[in-house]
Amino acid sequence: MLAAVSDVAWLQAMLDVEAALARAQARLGLIPAKAAEAIASRCRAEHFDIDQLGRDAIDAGSPVVPLVKALRAALPREAADRAHWGATSQDILDTAMMLIARRALDLIGEDLDRLASRAAELAARHRSTIMPARTLLQQAVPTTFGLKAAGWLVTIQAARSRLTAARGTLAVQLAGAAGTMAAFGDRGDEVVHELAGELGLGEPFFPWHTERGRVVQLGMALGLISGSVGKMAFDVVLMAQTEVGEVSEASAGRGGSSSMPQKQNPVGAVAVLACLRGVNAQVGLLLDTLVQEHERAAGAWQAEWPAVSEALRLTGGAVARGGEMLAGLEVHPDRMRENLALSRGLIMSEHVVVVLAERIGLKRARELVEAAAATASRTGLEFKDVLRHDPAISEQLKPADIDAALDPATYLGLAEAMVDRALAAYRAEGRTSR
Amino acid sequence: MLAAVSDVAWLQAMLDVEAALARAQARLGLIPAKAAEAIASRCRAEHFDIDQLGRDAIDAGSPVVPLVKALRAALPREAADRAHWGATSQDILDTAMMLIARRALDLIGEDLDRLASRAAELAARHRSTIMPARTLLQQAVPTTFGLKAAGWLVTIQAARSRLTAARGTLAVQLAGAAGTMAAFGDRGDEVVHELAGELGLGEPFFPWHTERGRVVQLGMALGLISGSVGKMAFDVVLMAQTEVGEVSEASAGRGGSSSMPQKQNPVGAVAVLACLRGVNAQVGLLLDTLVQEHERAAGAWQAEWPAVSEALRLTGGAVARGGEMLAGLEVHPDRMRENLALSRGLIMSEHVVVVLAERIGLKRARELVEAAAATASRTGLEFKDVLRHDPAISEQLKPADIDAALDPATYLGLAEAMVDRALAAYRAEGRTSR
Amino acid sequence: MLAAVSDVAWLQAMLDVEAALARAQARLGLIPAKAAEAIASRCRAEHFDIDQLGRDAIDAGSPVVPLVKALRAALPREAADRAHWGATSQDILDTAMMLIARRALDLIGEDLDRLASRAAELAARHRSTIMPARTLLQQAVPTTFGLKAAGWLVTIQAARSRLTAARGTLAVQLAGAAGTMAAFGDRGDEVVHELAGELGLGEPFFPWHTERGRVVQLGMALGLISGSVGKMAFDVVLMAQTEVGEVSEASAGRGGSSSMPQKQNPVGAVAVLACLRGVNAQVGLLLDTLVQEHERAAGAWQAEWPAVSEALRLTGGAVARGGEMLAGLEVHPDRMRENLALSRGLIMSEHVVVVLAERIGLKRARELVEAAAATASRTGLEFKDVLRHDPAISEQLKPADIDAALDPATYLGLAEAMVDRALAAYRAEGRTSR
Amino acid sequence: MLAAVSDVAWLQAMLDVEAALARAQARLGLIPAKAAEAIASRCRAEHFDIDQLGRDAIDAGSPVVPLVKALRAALPREAADRAHWGATSQDILDTAMMLIARRALDLIGEDLDRLASRAAELAARHRSTIMPARTLLQQAVPTTFGLKAAGWLVTIQAARSRLTAARGTLAVQLAGAAGTMAAFGDRGDEVVHELAGELGLGEPFFPWHTERGRVVQLGMALGLISGSVGKMAFDVVLMAQTEVGEVSEASAGRGGSSSMPQKQNPVGAVAVLACLRGVNAQVGLLLDTLVQEHERAAGAWQAEWPAVSEALRLTGGAVARGGEMLAGLEVHPDRMRENLALSRGLIMSEHVVVVLAERIGLKRARELVEAAAATASRTGLEFKDVLRHDPAISEQLKPADIDAALDPATYLGLAEAMVDRALAAYRAEGRTSR
Repeated sequence: MLAAVSDVAWLQAMLDVEAALARAQARLGLIPAKAAEAIASRCRAEHFDIDQLGRDAIDAGSPVVPLVKALRAALPREAADRAHWGATSQDILDTAMMLIARRALDLIGEDLDRLASRAAELAARHRSTIMPARTLLQQAVPTTFGLKAAGWLVTIQAARSRLTAARGTLAVQLAGAAGTMAAFGDRGDEVVHELAGELGLGEPFFPWHTERGRVVQLGMALGLISGSVGKMAFDVVLMAQTEVGEVSEASAGRGGSSSMPQKQNPVGAVAVLACLRGVNAQVGLLLDTLVQEHERAAGAWQAEWPAVSEALRLTGGAVARGGEMLAGLEVHPDRMRENLALSRGLIMSEHVVVVLAERIGLKRARELVEAAAATASRTGLEFKDVLRHDPAISEQLKPADIDAALDPATYLGLAEAMVDRALAAYRAEGRTSR
Repeated sequence: MLAAVSDVAWLQAMLDVEAALARAQARLGLIPAKAAEAIASRCRAEHFDIDQLGRDAIDAGSPVVPLVKALRAALPREAADRAHWGATSQDILDTAMMLIARRALDLIGEDLDRLASRAAELAARHRSTIMPARTLLQQAVPTTFGLKAAGWLVTIQAARSRLTAARGTLAVQLAGAAGTMAAFGDRGDEVVHELAGELGLGEPFFPWHTERGRVVQLGMALGLISGSVGKMAFDVVLMAQTEVGEVSEASAGRGGSSSMPQKQNPVGAVAVLACLRGVNAQVGLLLDTLVQEHERAAGAWQAEWPAVSEALRLTGGAVARGGEMLAGLEVHPDRMRENLALSRGLIMSEHVVVVLAERIGLKRARELVEAAAATASRTGLEFKDVLRHDPAISEQLKPADIDAALDPATYLGLAEAMVDRALAAYRAEGRTSR
Repeated sequence: MLAAVSDVAWLQAMLDVEAALARAQARLGLIPAKAAEAIASRCRAEHFDIDQLGRDAIDAGSPVVPLVKALRAALPREAADRAHWGATSQDILDTAMMLIARRALDLIGEDLDRLASRAAELAARHRSTIMPARTLLQQAVPTTFGLKAAGWLVTIQAARSRLTAARGTLAVQLAGAAGTMAAFGDRGDEVVHELAGELGLGEPFFPWHTERGRVVQLGMALGLISGSVGKMAFDVVLMAQTEVGEVSEASAGRGGSSSMPQKQNPVGAVAVLACLRGVNAQVGLLLDTLVQEHERAAGAWQAEWPAVSEALRLTGGAVARGGEMLAGLEVHPDRMRENLALSRGLIMSEHVVVVLAERIGLKRARELVEAAAATASRTGLEFKDVLRHDPAISEQLKPADIDAALDPATYLGLAEAMVDRALAAYRAEGRTSR
Repeated sequence: MLAAVSDVAWLQAMLDVEAALARAQARLGLIPAKAAEAIASRCRAEHFDIDQLGRDAIDAGSPVVPLVKALRAALPREAADRAHWGATSQDILDTAMMLIARRALDLIGEDLDRLASRAAELAARHRSTIMPARTLLQQAVPTTFGLKAAGWLVTIQAARSRLTAARGTLAVQLAGAAGTMAAFGDRGDEVVHELAGELGLGEPFFPWHTERGRVVQLGMALGLISGSVGKMAFDVVLMAQTEVGEVSEASAGRGGSSSMPQKQNPVGAVAVLACLRGVNAQVGLLLDTLVQEHERAAGAWQAEWPAVSEALRLTGGAVARGGEMLAGLEVHPDRMRENLALSRGLIMSEHVVVVLAERIGLKRARELVEAAAATASRTGLEFKDVLRHDPAISEQLKPADIDAALDPATYLGLAEAMVDRALAAYRAEGRTSR
């Protein structure tokens, strides 16, 4: 991913656009084929002094101005005249951004697929592995780890389809000095069409020099992807806490501390959470760039492409680190069971209410169970024993009824069915091409 | 719009969910029809003390807890027992948020449609009204005001389709205490199905207590809508500048200054720009809420629904103010022409290069034209005169050629064709139902 | 706090500015004393139709324009002429914002003081209450709860001093139509001076119509305050987890669940975390408003005062909820000890390295201890037993040495000394007036 | 600036901290002087394979872990044992961040000083250069360009003093594994004191592993600095518009277009505006990192130092580009005068109201002037002529009175006095050391 968004990658992407533009015009007979060939053969990053271009870009206010100058300087007169013909700097940079985005999205997509596959595996294997569900970080009712993993899977798949959608909107930009394509006479649309074909990018319905929905939606997809992996990562961090211990990131030399020998930090998860903060910062920036002045913005556009590059890099980092995290995730069903037992049965109190309410109505059932739960909390007694010794409750429920009501396995609702649903959808999607 | 997101609207939306939940369960035979009727008939905002509920919500950490308590207190025992059955606070609040969003999106959609209609009108009327295109706020080449308005139209239509997409993802939430729907036994899916039918909302594939892509995408759609109107508004502010004077917001008592009698401020445009900053702040907040802990978040979720409410309100404000702005927009073609003439022909210099390059190659053409442009800038002479008196140029171009090259109408490229394209697409869309 | 930033409060603040402006000019002899009296006596919010003003403000693009109109309409001719004399809308609104901010900051300051007092109490009482310190949510080494509370105290005090600093920068705005105070002739500075005196606000060095550092710094102080309380709140949420159980928010009817009787949610802490997200969204907005056009901005300024109002409200909410959280916080030293024991001694491994390194060098010590820690992790044995049975270690350390090395109380470093330092500073500050 | 925040600079900064830590402990007799010398002499970036460290950092979750390993590997046993003694990764990285920040702030400070000097020059030279003041981008009343430049100066100086304040808060971090400094026994404070002395950084009152106000305030200072330069830059962009033409960035090969020969883009100003968007994104990220878990955060901290590095780099870019912009700024007083005349006198309408109100009261004066202004707008007549021919006005004001009232030079208020005030303060500050 670092290579896909590096300075060299950007330079090559810009050169790819210049080369494709020349070829597109040659195909239409707008410039000589020989000139196009000369231009295209020169459009290799290694022919350029990238540091010098960087310095010149500051004075020029754009990296394209010095690049075109250097390109023309290296070409014979006839070809030099035809290079960059009819385009404006933003045409080149915007289209290059789309190429960069496409390459990066493909890498991210592959990593997301691996993540999804691993989440599916966890969901299947732990379909019935009982653990506490937690709301506001308090144990609430039982669930299964499979359902948690299935939730991750569904979220990742949703993010994956946003990526696919965003990739589908990538399009060339070619509208000339200020959006009218005037330098192409009346053949602008044809050049756009050929350029899009050359680069395998979409053909935009309209120039988008200052209509930046396309870029903002790309950013938003990256935010959704990172955030989706981030939700999973934070669950892992929380489950990996010393006191919870339900999962751990596999070690093999990773996650050690520089001072504490016993520590095994969830470094993959933490890296995801760090990356996504960076992504969100850039997505926020991109959202603000929708307001662009007239036919080319003074600042908003110039802030955009470094932000896209950074958001791609960091999303790539989040997804890659998330993949490592999940690949090495060790699950500890024994700790899950122990944690379920921590409340000495209180986690089942909603279920006891449900069972009791069938006989004496909800209001009275809640009152009795709340009182019993308070007693159990105060005394440290097992909830079972408190319930058995409460005359109003034991009048309704026999010891066996109470035991059944307190068995977490009887109160999983649709947890397992939802795991199956998520896995079925995942497998069905896998059969269709994206 | 204020009414659609008011405290009363939220209260009623929560009550609508409780009523629908009771009816849904009655239809499935899970609760008695009579209880459902009693519950539904009580679910009217005017029956509740909204201020007291607000105060109690702080202690409870949720508005639903005191609301359910108050609702049950007002019902006969049998019905009280069945109210809110199987749901958790978040189920009610999330589904209420979807109802609020639907109502608000519909209002926003109507205003957007008016905006689009007015933009289309402007594009059609000013299809050929020549004005300067500006990049980095410098005059660049000629364009038409129609093309600018067509760009607005295309952007608004794109935002409109995002709204439609976001509206289509609105779905009920009903997953019980922690996402397993355990209190419904194995009938959770049926209840969700009935509830969705009752409310006319979608049926989610999975519970979304802590999978918040749906909410983030709603926020992003609002950001795109506001930003799209904002781009238009900033164009208006810039064109309305005293020194530019190409448009003005119609007055009729609006936009006066408290101290300067002559001022006619573009108050609609300014209000749009203020609103969208508020929207973007909330969208950024929403993006950050993708990371939610376990089965219910401690903070991120609680920050979400006020943010959605505010984002809806402010997007509604932006679109409404934008509509007023555009409805009253006066266009001044004469000032556009005067501004085009400001550079004494220099705005046509790219065209002169194009024309000259056909004869003597681009490099030489650029050199000659750049020198002539510099002379014209330095001396204040008409560009035409400088070109005529330059021997190297006049050797290639006759005075009539120069005049033609300097005529803005000859260098509009596809401006008018693109206006037609945008209008055709707009009309085609209008024929299809959304 | 709600009252301090309500619409009525804003209306009254604007009226307070108009009244003070009239009195200031009367004192300088610029307007008749009788006119000033008439104006001032009319400047009461209850004399105005706040809903109508709100509607008119939209058309006017400012609430001040209709307010001044309504004020003048209610005054005799002579006084009407003098009302708002020399001021521009922004003068009134900016100064009103400062009044609102002052009142709100005072409330926030009081709540912060209560928070600090309670944190100091906790630090003192639990100076030596041993608990695990956690890094990346993994147990690291022992610390004391007193040190944690002392860290909160230091942070709150730092935020408190930022509040004091921000309060000290609040100043009047009075620069007329566009910053030159031209309507006051050459007496502008005198009017500013008198107005500042009237309102008890500072006198700005320069007009700040579009130089908004003052507002941004106010926002940043609010962000720091909320974030400081938020750090504390998240510590509470994490310590209150069922599996950690080191603290709980006292109940008394708070934090119950609508479906689960046993739950005791940390509702105060969660509310803090929700509020601070809202604050940060507004602070981000404010930061972006530093770039304001010319002598009055078109959008950035208009977005500012609702953002300030909201940031004050939510900061007030965060601090108030944080205060409730801390006031009712129950600390469970027994659970802290149990958690320390969870790692069967491994949490002391850094200390064992330190002790052993004194005899055999760090490298060798780390190797031995890491191996022993791995054995203890794998086998579930007590770390003590593994160390005792390791020949290379037991050669260096006698059983008593090992016991001493594993005693958390021997490895607290400066924890208790730092508690004393924080408390001493807190008490010293308390003796000085703010 | 690029060099000051490069990867090599960060590596060297971390090594500087390790070296200083060793020397500090040697001075206290905690480690042998010889070991400290060996460590310090090895702490040179060129001795390390920076790419390999980067790769290893991902697995380790921190760059310090592999760095310490590599450092120890390159040292004799005795010294290796003493390297990094008592510190945790965050101690090294946080302190390195402070060193990086100090170097970068010094560079930024120098550039800010140059900016201030140039703004002062412009304020002095154009103290009385009359131009239109603009509110909501509409001409409002006259002002002078000197006052505008003085406003810039005041803002820059305020930002400069924020920088100085932020620089003063830079402090070492050294608190060991989890904030208790336990590995130093009871000598932690002494080591901190010596380390601070070695590095010339402040001594913190308390460890700040998860109390991040210091970092957030650094970020906020950077946001204020960038935003202050950004306000100036946007004024320049607006004044440089083709239709306004009041300033231009000097050319000398800068700001050309890749397609339009006549263009002279305000590239410095645009670059400032692009940079500041990037800065604000990072500052927003930093603000969100105030909430850090327990004694070391899982994600928030890891996101912080790249954000600080980027914010420093981009602030440096904004200030440097702003400096180039101002250094080459050409001011066109003739265009300012022409623009003032654009409204044919209407810009003076507030003044006419002021003059007339002295005779016939404000209400009547406003009515007459508003009517006259409307007539002038509608007819295109000179305001002067409309006023002269209005019987109600000409009854009160003689032609000479009208001419005087319409002379912009008579309605500058305190513009020139404020220029003098700003310059006096600037010169006074220059005499004091920072």
